[in-house]
Order: sequence, then structure tokens, then C-alpha cells
Amino acid sequence: MKLRGEHCIGGAWVPSCGETFHGMDPRTGAVLQPAYADATIAEVDRACRAAAAAQPELERLAPQSRAALLRAIGEEILELGDALLERTGAETGLPLARLQSERGRTTWQLEHFAQVIEEGSWVEARIDRALPQRTPLPRPDLRRMLVPVGPVAVFGASNFPYAYSVAGGDTASALAAGCAVVVKAHPAHPGTCELVARAIHAAVARLGLPGGVFSLVHGRAHGVGAALVQHPAVAAVGFTGSYQGGRALFDLAARRPHPIPVYAEMGSVNPVFVLPAAAMARGAALAEKLAASALLGTGQFCTSPGVMVLPEGEAGRALARDLARRMAAADQGTMVHCSLAQAHARRLADVRAVEGVEVLAEAAAPGSAAGAGAVVLGCSLSTWLASESVRHEIFGPATVVLHCASAADYEAVARSLDGQLTATVHAEPDDEATASRLLALLASRAGRLVWNGVPTGVEVTHAMVHGGPWPASSDPRTTSVGSAALTRWVRPVAWQDVPQALLPDELRDGNPRGIWRLVEGRLSRD
Amino acid sequence: MKLRGEHCIGGAWVPSCGETFHGMDPRTGAVLQPAYADATIAEVDRACRAAAAAQPELERLAPQSRAALLRAIGEEILELGDALLERTGAETGLPLARLQSERGRTTWQLEHFAQVIEEGSWVEARIDRALPQRTPLPRPDLRRMLVPVGPVAVFGASNFPYAYSVAGGDTASALAAGCAVVVKAHPAHPGTCELVARAIHAAVARLGLPGGVFSLVHGRAHGVGAALVQHPAVAAVGFTGSYQGGRALFDLAARRPHPIPVYAEMGSVNPVFVLPAAAMARGAALAEKLAASALLGTGQFCTSPGVMVLPEGEAGRALARDLARRMAAADQGTMVHCSLAQAHARRLADVRAVEGVEVLAEAAAPGSAAGAGAVVLGCSLSTWLASESVRHEIFGPATVVLHCASAADYEAVARSLDGQLTATVHAEPDDEATASRLLALLASRAGRLVWNGVPTGVEVTHAMVHGGPWPASSDPRTTSVGSAALTRWVRPVAWQDVPQALLPDELRDGNPRGIWRLVEGRLSRD
Repeated sequence: MKLRGEHCIGGAWVPSCGETFHGMDPRTGAVLQPAYADATIAEVDRACRAAAAAQPELERLAPQSRAALLRAIGEEILELGDALLERTGAETGLPLARLQSERGRTTWQLEHFAQVIEEGSWVEARIDRALPQRTPLPRPDLRRMLVPVGPVAVFGASNFPYAYSVAGGDTASALAAGCAVVVKAHPAHPGTCELVARAIHAAVARLGLPGGVFSLVHGRAHGVGAALVQHPAVAAVGFTGSYQGGRALFDLAARRPHPIPVYAEMGSVNPVFVLPAAAMARGAALAEKLAASALLGTGQFCTSPGVMVLPEGEAGRALARDLARRMAAADQGTMVHCSLAQAHARRLADVRAVEGVEVLAEAAAPGSAAGAGAVVLGCSLSTWLASESVRHEIFGPATVVLHCASAADYEAVARSLDGQLTATVHAEPDDEATASRLLALLASRAGRLVWNGVPTGVEVTHAMVHGGPWPASSDPRTTSVGSAALTRWVRPVAWQDVPQALLPDELRDGNPRGIWRLVEGRLSRD
Repeated sequence: MKLRGEHCIGGAWVPSCGETFHGMDPRTGAVLQPAYADATIAEVDRACRAAAAAQPELERLAPQSRAALLRAIGEEILELGDALLERTGAETGLPLARLQSERGRTTWQLEHFAQVIEEGSWVEARIDRALPQRTPLPRPDLRRMLVPVGPVAVFGASNFPYAYSVAGGDTASALAAGCAVVVKAHPAHPGTCELVARAIHAAVARLGLPGGVFSLVHGRAHGVGAALVQHPAVAAVGFTGSYQGGRALFDLAARRPHPIPVYAEMGSVNPVFVLPAAAMARGAALAEKLAASALLGTGQFCTSPGVMVLPEGEAGRALARDLARRMAAADQGTMVHCSLAQAHARRLADVRAVEGVEVLAEAAAPGSAAGAGAVVLGCSLSTWLASESVRHEIFGPATVVLHCASAADYEAVARSLDGQLTATVHAEPDDEATASRLLALLASRAGRLVWNGVPTGVEVTHAMVHGGPWPASSDPRTTSVGSAALTRWVRPVAWQDVPQALLPDELRDGNPRGIWRLVEGRLSRD
């Protein structure tokens, strides 16, 4: 399957003409062909205009047809077969088994959203019927549902080249909601992006939809993404990546003449609190579990545990030693691209330079180009509380260990935390008083509270929350994973006294879609 | 009922010490005692800290108790009796009957939110149970619901001194959602603010809640509001007022180290499209209805119709003449404060100066200090499309009339529109083809589509949408009126594998709250 090095703009494949760059194998450092180029401002503009032009047709599409589009995308991705897995393996260094399972998760996400929009109740239809006899004034008939906001710009992440990239959760949920999508390809896996775009392009064509429903523009320079976020036709932005990247896009969007929402998932420290009785009862099992979680995907999970808050005393100290030993002894990995490995090394050096921070264990990096060895750092509670640098995410295979002598210490750590995607508590019945207070504190700081588990592993379900207060995400009112992710791309509209024939199906008398609706304040399918 | 001229900070009445200002009677220009003063930065800080300190207790409060608080506020407002109505009449010039009905709407809003939180399903509980047998990995138990974001800053509007001010929709919905509130009093009705704050203060005390649940700070200088929006303890902002004010608060919030959402309702042009057959069939009735809507509250409604898009031809021209005649002949009014009347005059002068804009009718302002006479302006379609100034809101008793010769003209006007709170279409069966296309265009630009009615009049119901794309509101994903306004002040949190005893009632097995929950993707009350 020959790669073309092209953008996909409004249904047409367009040769690149800007500054060029290449994918690179993070294991060998080998440059991968073909060359890709930064989209020009004019190319970004064409992609956005095509999206705006396609938007009305996408909105008129029946939910069943949108579901068919999502399923067709999944099928076309599988059609790419081993060629896709091989290219992604070369571009990211991720092992085959991981890529296969991530591909499965990606097609399941598409299927999950297809099911939700087929069922249809997610539009939150509400009907308050007219009260013509009301005094002093009659009440009109009011019917409301969620409608698409318009074209969405998507910025994929490098660490999940399928599930959070071109056909990942943002694209899947935006298309499901009825929004045309323009994806800015991640420059670390441009070939993967091109192949997946080919699958979406084929699915769009198969359904006979306008090409503007989906575009892909390549770009390594910041200007490409900036042009996309500032384009008047773009109504919302989805992003997964670094804090710096997310903040930059958020600022650009907020400074537009007409600001638009940015849903940036910017990572997190994902604290794990191990309470004294839990450390006592199952320290060895915990060390194994937590070490594996911290090293999953070479620490490149948004939900990777970045600080382990352990008890003082022998059980806690033994757990720390065991954790350090296991992380240092584990198979060491390769990060998904070299600049990420470099950023990891710089960030790690900064934290190591903080007074009071010590290295508890350190593994040599493997010989790969983007290799990174596990590092376990230790610091005292007072160092943790005093140093903002220590409290920030170290993206990669590193974690910080600290010890608490009392319930008050644990609570002080909880209070010191910025917004988090997750917060985990390990407790036994004897820990319950502290655990209960901790959970209450953590609920105001995290999107997901994990009990006696690990933060890595984000289920695609209805109840999932993958998001959290700033800086975990730029908009904690939503999730980027699970069916509730749909609501990022919609807004409510009310129809007042509008005749039946001009109402959307979802709001008509007789409920032709058979969805759950809030009628006069009561949920009903009648 | 003697006014103290004091702030209410964390449950204590605090004498003012900053720069002073007074309320003023917009009818007579008389200065009203007592003096009020800009809150100092330290006072704003104390109010916000008190809110943060009260937040956990408010969150622990059972929904029934929060509902009791809302009802107690309504009762205490009624307890203020005629003294409140008299003071507000003096500060705003609004007639007694209007104030009585607005007070009724305000207490109904409190009751409406009380009912919604008592019923409880609004928290959107979702449960996906564990699948311990799933391979390759078991699925954990995930339970999610909406939780309060934290303390909310509220900026009331001058044009609705009850319904959108101290105890208005923003405060009512924030308290209902479980968020402590700090209100920045509107400087045009400080005495009304103090009295209503007294009612809330009494209700908070009656329920035995910490005083920090509610604070009121006065201020005329921008710095007071800025300090509030920038305070680290504040988690979200509600605002109703001008575009300039809303944009300024939005920018401050977006530039914080940790940005927070701003729900600014910034007004709207509220276009009214009268299609040819409708103008023919009921021109005279329409002129009467639209003139009354445009002059309701001296044009000081957010939903006041600011442009009438009429057909070319005799019926449309007759409608325009009739509308102009009626608006000029109507009882002329007084704006709620002098600076608003001055802003209206300046804005009107700007639009009148646009080449191609003519005055179709103009009434003399009444002799009051803030009097404003109705003005009907006319312009051609090309002037409308060419001039951004003509297309912006003229807040006050003014409207623009233009004529369309074809369906394409109507659609061009619709396409020229910025985001709107409302858009209205008047049509008869013969207009249906144009009406249908117009509604589709308008649905992407407005929060509420009104059929054969007037945009003024915003019902407090479940299906209401009072909001719309920028610049109608800064966050079109929500409404500031109706039960869905609650969701502005919450975010989702997921609990993973957390034991029953540590879960909120809403998420426990057996559904002790008896609410609707999405269990494994199916709505259920079991």
C-alpha cells in the first residue's frame, strides 16, 4: 500500500507543497518515506470551507446513515490490514499486540457511538406543551433538543495512534454528533494518519456523502494548527496531547472574534494513595500492580500514575523499595518519538535538580533511538508541597514516591493537587475514615476516582469520565471517552410553536424515533 | 426598612469603605440614599474564601435541604413586601405591575429549581457494572454523576432587577446545583440588591448553613468584578448584560492560570422574518403584536426584536408603515438607568449615521431623566448586508425594518446574522418552502426559533433555551433560563469500583433516591 504523502481535502487527495518532514522509526532513528509537508494556509482554508459546505447535508442525514458511516469507517480501517499495523509499528515503535488491541478499541468506539445515535435518546429531547388557557398569558409549545455545533477541528495524540488520532474518539464522536471534521495529522505518525484518512475517505465515498465531511491536513509547524483553530468555519476543537499544546490552542480559540470551545485533554499526574492498612495487607501485590501500571506503554498513558503516596513505616518503605526494584528490573521501552524522549529527559532532569528529590531507582535506557529507562524518584512531603515542578506530570516511564505519617499528611497531598484525570485510593476497612475524607477531597480535583485499582485503562462505556479540572482538561464539563463525549459537539435549540411538519423527527408528536424524551418534566417514550 | 449600604460577606454585613456611588431614580434623576462603595480587593477575597470554605458543607447537603434553601429565599423575598417593590421602582423606574410579575417569576424560578433537584434525575447518573469475566481484562464497575464545580460568581443585569439579579436564575441554579455564590451587585440598583441579599442571608441563616454560601459585594468600578473573576476560588461565572461587559469577563477568565467557564448572556438582535403570505393575511395584527414586543419594557428585553425582515410589495410596506406609526404613537418609556439611556442614544446616533439608513418614525422621549423615545429605522437589504453597525443590537426602544424581494433575499439576511438568542418566522401555508429553508438556516444561528409569535417572553420550563451562538452568549452549549440552566455549574465524576458505603446516594445499588439512571445504557428507575 503505497503512501502518497498527501493531504485529503474535501474528498480530494492533494500533493503537499509546504515545508517537508518525515516520519521516523523511534527504535532505529531511520527516516521513513514518503515526505509530508505542512499544509498551507490556503489548504487549511479549503478544508474548512469544504467542511462548512458539507455540514448541512451531514445534519440532514438520518441517524441510521450516520451510524452506517461510523461502521463503514471501522470496516475500512480493518480493510487496511497488516499494512496499517506495520506502518504504525515503524512510526511509533509500539508492539504489534498493543496496536492490534488499540485498533480493536478504535473500531469498538466507532460501533459504540453508532449504537448510541441509532438509539437516539442522547439528543436530550424535551417537550413542554402549550397552555393556551394560562393567565395572564398563554404558554407556548416549547420543544428542545441538541443539534450539531458545526465543523470540528481534531488534533490527535502521538501516544495512541489509532484510538486518539485520525479516527479516534474525537473524530468518531464529532461525526456521530453530525459535525464535519478536519483533522490535523500528528507529525509523529503521518503515514498512519494518511492510511486511516484513506479509510475514512473511502467510507464517506461509500455512503455518497460530500467529501467535505472529512479532511486531513498534515503539519509539523504550529502555524497549521493555528490556522485551523482560527478559521471562522470551525466551531469547536478536540485535542489530546501536552499541556503546552492544549493551552496554546485554548488561547487561540479564546482570542478569536467569536471564541469557540476547545476540549483539550492535557494529561495528568494521576496520584495513587496507598493507605496504611492496604500497604500492610497487600504491599507486594501493590508494588507489582503499580509498577506495571506506571510502565504500561513506556509510561505514555494520559492516566499513568505519576505519584505514589505511601504510608510511613516499614510496610510503606518496603512497598517503595519493591516498586523501585520492579520498575528498574522491568523490560525497558521506547517512546513513540524522539522528541518525546528528549522532552522526557529534560523534564526528568528538571525534577531531579529540585533540592530534596532523590533517585530511588533508575534503569538504563534501551539502545533504541527514543529509548527511556524507568526512573523512580523520592521526596519528602515538604519537598512535594514546596515544589511546583515536582507536582507536575513527567510524561514517560517515571514516578515520584512520597510518604505520609498521618491522615493529615494524606489530605495535604490531596489538597496540593491540580486537576487530575484520575485519582486512586488503595484502602482496607481499617483505612476507611481517611479514605472517605480523601475521596471527598479528590472528587473536587479529579474526573475519575479509582478504588483499589490502577488508573491506566480507560473503558469506552456510558459512565466513563476521561477529563477533569484544569490542567487535566481544558473543559471539565465533559469527557473525551465514552458515549457522553458526544455532547461536546452539540448545543440545544428550542422550537416554539413550530408546526409538526417543520420539527425534527425527535420532537414530533407520536415520537416517531421512539426515543426517551422529557415531556412536561417526566421521562417518557410515548 | 432602612438600607445599610453594606456588603454581605460570608454571612456578615460589612460597611463599605471604597469609592462611593448612589442609586438614582431614572425618572427624576434624584440621588437615592444610602451611599454604596466599591468592594476592596480584600473584601472580594474574603467573600470568595468564605464561599470556598462553605462549599464542602453545601455539597454534603441533601437535595431536599438545598430545595428548602431555595424556597426559603423565595419566602424571604416576599417577606420584604412593598418596601422591596418601592425601592426597585425608585431605582429602575419600572412600573409596579411589572415588578410584581417579575418578583413572581423570580420566586417561581426558585421553586422550579427546588422541584428539579428534589426529583433528582438531573444529575445524569450512569452505571456500567463490572464484568469480572471479560477477557483479556475484566471490566471495572463505573458509576458517574454530575457534581458541583465550586463557588460561582454572578453578575446580575440591570434590566431585570429580580429575575436576572441577586436571586435570579444564575444564583438560583448555582445554589440548586450545590455551588456557593458570590454576587457582584448591579450598581444601578444597589438598594434592591441589598434587600434581596438580606432575604438570602436570612434564608441561609434559617437553614443553619455557613454564611459563605452567599455573599454580595457592591461595585461600580470594573476592578471589583475583575477581582472576582480572577479569584482562584471561583470556579465559574454567570453574567447577563452587554456584549462589552460579557466579553471583558470572558477574556479575564480565559487568561487565568486556570481558566474557568463564563456563561455570559450578552443580548441579541432577535430578527423577525415576516414572509409574504403572512404579511398579506395578517399585516395589521402583526404590526400591533411586533410593535408591542419591540417596546416591551422600553425595549430593554434581551429578546427584544431588533430587526423586522418584511416582504417587498404593498402588504410589506403597509406593515412597515403601521409598525412605525404604532411605535411612535405608543406610550414612551424610561430606561432603567441614565447611563443605559445615554448608551442607547450614542448607539442610535451611530446607526443613523450609516449611509442608507433612514428614520421611518421617531417619538419624542418622555420628560424623565432616562427617557427614550421609540425609533424605527429603515434600510435596504444591501445596506444591511454591508454595515456591521446596522446588524448589531441597539439596546432600547428601537428597531430596524428592511424588505426582501425574494426567498433568496430572506436567506441572505439569515446568513448575515451573528449568533442570536431567538429568531422568529411569521408564515402562512403559502410561505412554507421559504419558511422551511429559513428555519434550517436559523437553527444554526439561534438558540430559540419562534413560529408566528414574538421573541419577548422567556418561559421558565424544561425545554426553554435562553442562549445562542456567540455573541448572543459566550457558551451556546447551555441556557440561562429553565431547568437545564443547572448543568452550567456541574461536571461529571466517575467512581470506579468504589464500595457502596462511599458512593453518593444517587449511584448506590437499589437506587435509594429513586431517580432515573442510565444503567448499562438503558434508562431505568430500578
